[in-house]
Amino acid sequence: MEKRNIYLDKLPLTEAKEIILNNLAGNYREATERVKVEDASGRVTAEAVYAEDSSPHYYAAAMDGFAVDVDKTFGASKRDPKELTIGQEAFFVDTGDAVPEGCNGVIMIEDVNQLDEATIEITASVAPGQHIRSIGEDILASQLLAPVNTKLGPSEIGGLLAGGITEIEVRKEPEVAILPTGTELVDPGSSLQPGEIVEYNSRVIASQIREWGAVPVKADKVEDDYELIKNRVDRLSQQYDLVLIIAGSSAGAEDYTSQVIENLGELLFHGVAIKPGKPLMAGVINEKLVIGLPGYPVSAYLGTQLFVRPVIERLLGLTCSQPEKVKAELTQNLTSKLGEEEFVRVNVAHIDGDLKAVPLQRGAGVINSVMKSDGFIRIPALKQGMKQNKQVEVELRRDIDYNQNLLIAGEEDLAYELLCNQIKLQGVGLNLKFKNMASETAVDTLEQKAANAALVKTVGMRQETVVVNLAVSEVGLVVRPDNSLGINGVEDLSQEGLSFVNQQQGRAARRLLDSRLETAGINTQEIVGYRQEEITGRDAANLVKEGIIDVGLASRGVAELFNLDFISLGQITSSLVILESEVEREELKKLLEVVRSNEYKSQLQKIAGYNTEDCGEIIDRK
Amino acid sequence: MEKRNIYLDKLPLTEAKEIILNNLAGNYREATERVKVEDASGRVTAEAVYAEDSSPHYYAAAMDGFAVDVDKTFGASKRDPKELTIGQEAFFVDTGDAVPEGCNGVIMIEDVNQLDEATIEITASVAPGQHIRSIGEDILASQLLAPVNTKLGPSEIGGLLAGGITEIEVRKEPEVAILPTGTELVDPGSSLQPGEIVEYNSRVIASQIREWGAVPVKADKVEDDYELIKNRVDRLSQQYDLVLIIAGSSAGAEDYTSQVIENLGELLFHGVAIKPGKPLMAGVINEKLVIGLPGYPVSAYLGTQLFVRPVIERLLGLTCSQPEKVKAELTQNLTSKLGEEEFVRVNVAHIDGDLKAVPLQRGAGVINSVMKSDGFIRIPALKQGMKQNKQVEVELRRDIDYNQNLLIAGEEDLAYELLCNQIKLQGVGLNLKFKNMASETAVDTLEQKAANAALVKTVGMRQETVVVNLAVSEVGLVVRPDNSLGINGVEDLSQEGLSFVNQQQGRAARRLLDSRLETAGINTQEIVGYRQEEITGRDAANLVKEGIIDVGLASRGVAELFNLDFISLGQITSSLVILESEVEREELKKLLEVVRSNEYKSQLQKIAGYNTEDCGEIIDRK
Repeated sequence: MEKRNIYLDKLPLTEAKEIILNNLAGNYREATERVKVEDASGRVTAEAVYAEDSSPHYYAAAMDGFAVDVDKTFGASKRDPKELTIGQEAFFVDTGDAVPEGCNGVIMIEDVNQLDEATIEITASVAPGQHIRSIGEDILASQLLAPVNTKLGPSEIGGLLAGGITEIEVRKEPEVAILPTGTELVDPGSSLQPGEIVEYNSRVIASQIREWGAVPVKADKVEDDYELIKNRVDRLSQQYDLVLIIAGSSAGAEDYTSQVIENLGELLFHGVAIKPGKPLMAGVINEKLVIGLPGYPVSAYLGTQLFVRPVIERLLGLTCSQPEKVKAELTQNLTSKLGEEEFVRVNVAHIDGDLKAVPLQRGAGVINSVMKSDGFIRIPALKQGMKQNKQVEVELRRDIDYNQNLLIAGEEDLAYELLCNQIKLQGVGLNLKFKNMASETAVDTLEQKAANAALVKTVGMRQETVVVNLAVSEVGLVVRPDNSLGINGVEDLSQEGLSFVNQQQGRAARRLLDSRLETAGINTQEIVGYRQEEITGRDAANLVKEGIIDVGLASRGVAELFNLDFISLGQITSSLVILESEVEREELKKLLEVVRSNEYKSQLQKIAGYNTEDCGEIIDRK
Repeated sequence: MEKRNIYLDKLPLTEAKEIILNNLAGNYREATERVKVEDASGRVTAEAVYAEDSSPHYYAAAMDGFAVDVDKTFGASKRDPKELTIGQEAFFVDTGDAVPEGCNGVIMIEDVNQLDEATIEITASVAPGQHIRSIGEDILASQLLAPVNTKLGPSEIGGLLAGGITEIEVRKEPEVAILPTGTELVDPGSSLQPGEIVEYNSRVIASQIREWGAVPVKADKVEDDYELIKNRVDRLSQQYDLVLIIAGSSAGAEDYTSQVIENLGELLFHGVAIKPGKPLMAGVINEKLVIGLPGYPVSAYLGTQLFVRPVIERLLGLTCSQPEKVKAELTQNLTSKLGEEEFVRVNVAHIDGDLKAVPLQRGAGVINSVMKSDGFIRIPALKQGMKQNKQVEVELRRDIDYNQNLLIAGEEDLAYELLCNQIKLQGVGLNLKFKNMASETAVDTLEQKAANAALVKTVGMRQETVVVNLAVSEVGLVVRPDNSLGINGVEDLSQEGLSFVNQQQGRAARRLLDSRLETAGINTQEIVGYRQEEITGRDAANLVKEGIIDVGLASRGVAELFNLDFISLGQITSSLVILESEVEREELKKLLEVVRSNEYKSQLQKIAGYNTEDCGEIIDRK
């Protein structure tokens, strides 16, 4: 059972999708159910719906006047008026009133003289149907209200009810079983042991599926055991319309899935030429489609999007929906592997007048990058990448309003997270998206129009930018609470047996450290771990907290967040740098308004070591 | 109680919306509830969510090799290797395995020689953290996962669970009471008496509200009685977050609503300068917002969209969502009333390379036109209309894919409804939208690029168009089943006491009738109702069926649909006319494929009087 699978037939995406949809035909259960129309929003008609009643369904007066049998008005004129008896031959109607039976026209009040309580005199004749609001003005009995396979929304509910339809046959929502496999999996909320992984893929997939109108059925996770998996898949495929097997992240787990499919039914393919998502497979068991999804969270998410969604749509009788797309300019070169269609997550934002697409992390394990993304771009299998400035097509995630996006590039700072929160608390229509990088790089990125603002720490001024103060904060060394190693400053970093973790080169804290080391005349080679870099102070503090490293470099705020001791090395100013050309833009004005709000300042002030005296002030405008 | 209200303060839309949102502040209940993260898709966070665990949460080997305490590797080299005891000082790890406690580095298998079962020799030293996959590569404990007031979707579910969060505080879904008022209202499914109206507004509004994340509470309808309405509104405003009162369509009902609001609380405004939707009002009762919606279905729908949606979003802590918009070219002149912002329903489609917006019926009573529409355009209050060919902004209805739209203009034909159904049955990605007009007008419309195809009956050829045969059908006179009047042909139409209803001028059936009358030498003035026109044969047949009119003009198929007797006057050919320039377009090729399919033909043949021998054949290509 330990042999490794080679992807014998890495299929192109469209081919793989076609195979799946073609193999659906056989087991496509035309299951329908009867529901009340008023509960049918979001459901799909299983048959054409025709109006039973007209709307309006009765003849209504279109004028104030008298309803009459037109025959009795024949020949009436000013010169030769006719008399009619009220309540017998003529009936008073307001506009909208039903026309009494036996009447087939309405004579306008202007053509009527009331002679006494019981009699009117009419001075014109009436044609059949005159001044009567037509039956079926809105909907005519027998007309097609909704073709078969129509997804119903609020206005359709109205139209159907107006047409006298109260119950309809709709497609049954497909039931999709989701089976997570992997011995390493534990349920959310368990206290985690090393090597264990929280099983959240099935929860993500369940909510994807629910959005598309199907019913997810989460099966209990099963460990990497061939027989166990086989029994479960056999049973699930008998019970449900579609079975999804999520393989564990280990190569072995994936083998089980393909073998189970082969031995219970037919394996249609194993391996698709996409990235992430390559190990995806599909088969047919008990006449039901079974899809094996990769275990990496991004692969599982994307695989579900690309393969499960069209299956659900087909089962519901719908055509494949197209994602909303937008054209944007790529902000950096991307390389990719020939022969694989790669899906690169991106953020999208208007920057200095152009819509830009900024790539995010590409790892298959980073669900965070899906959460932060606005959509993805595809690098075709036959390309080895895409060039900066190329116009690319971004397929947007659902309900994304990229017009509210502002991209911030720079050094992570607790001030940033507070800003995100304040924006949402104050109900400001902005979404901030963050890209972590050293200050100088961030300003370069800003100047290259790949960000709307740079979050920088103690950085020199540049042309055509505006610098807005955020806060002054303290940076220093962080150690475990007891400070048992007795660290008092940079002098102690070269202590025998002590381990240190540094921050990335170019970061403000790193520069401060280096200057302190230089002043103290300490050779960095003597510091164990000086070249061991974490990106942010938070990463470093976390390593100290976890007991892996003795000393890290971080801000006082971060030290407090992780309950660590803090030895100050000095102060750093954080600021936002904005393009001069965007300062007057509505979205950036909104952003600065929040920065300058008292609520934000008072939140910021609560962070240990933060001085917000000049928060929101423009430092320089060169 | 009979006095009529004047709209004293017809407010502009934005002003009215602002008043509503400002008056929400007072009664904004910050109600939250705790839910499981895995059930939280679509919900909105009520507080900022920070990661509790990192993901990965353990130190994982990034290479196959041995996990070690790096101190014990210090100084090792090829020249000076060090020996370590397996299971005590060195532990074999596969990529992804947890690094055992006490180890803070992994030495690659390439730098290891296994001496015996218990001992390895290492030829390089290891730095702290080396070849260990960083904790928090995806998510770092303490990081902001979701700001407050964030709407969660599948990937957020994943991110939160990965960050160790299993339960969160979310905004309670606002409960919105919907109270229909009007003595004329009856529930769907009731057998309708003249003057009664099916109460479907509350059902439409309920499904609109559900889409936006609130809980609709449908209250029992109440008749037009001031005290009854007052008591109900008083009670509902105490129980729910927002109360919607749907006034009956009569002017009196609306009075009750405004008086109830005034007497129970404060009327904020009555009357908004929009069309449809003018009589909309709002007030505050028991510190809750109360909105009075107009009774006309389109007004109620639009009023809910414009005023209730932002209230729900505000209650949920979200900013006002912007509809998806698209620019299109208006196909006809539109006039509108100065001082009112008018919302005109439109269809949108690509026609001959350009995206066009084609206005639909504008009446407030026509829910059908909302159902058929793709969105609407706004004519600003300070404009008296919009000119043909103007670029307009269309605000799209949810989930509209206008790229699949084809606009068909022409004479209603049962062949059309069957075609709509066949397209959906065959799973073809097309949506047909129909605009009813006489054949010649339809071909003009086609030539003006305001439709993708004209559905015509026996019409002359034109330049640059292609004509595709649909069917030959019979047209004639329709009478009630017994034919008690003994109608045998056009000669009998001038019978004393007989009433006739005609079709619109320009329609093929009308032209056929006229030619038959001319041949028979009958003066049309002698026919009672000759000038009384219904648009389609179906409308005419319906009037005959309802007993209002004795004889109508329709096809044999329609006669059968309404169970009427039919006296044939002759045959008419129905065909589809397409622009030569669009014949090769993918969407039109798909359409013709369906027209030519055997399934469609066999459906068409089932209609009485239809001959489909040449269905799908190109008649002429001039």
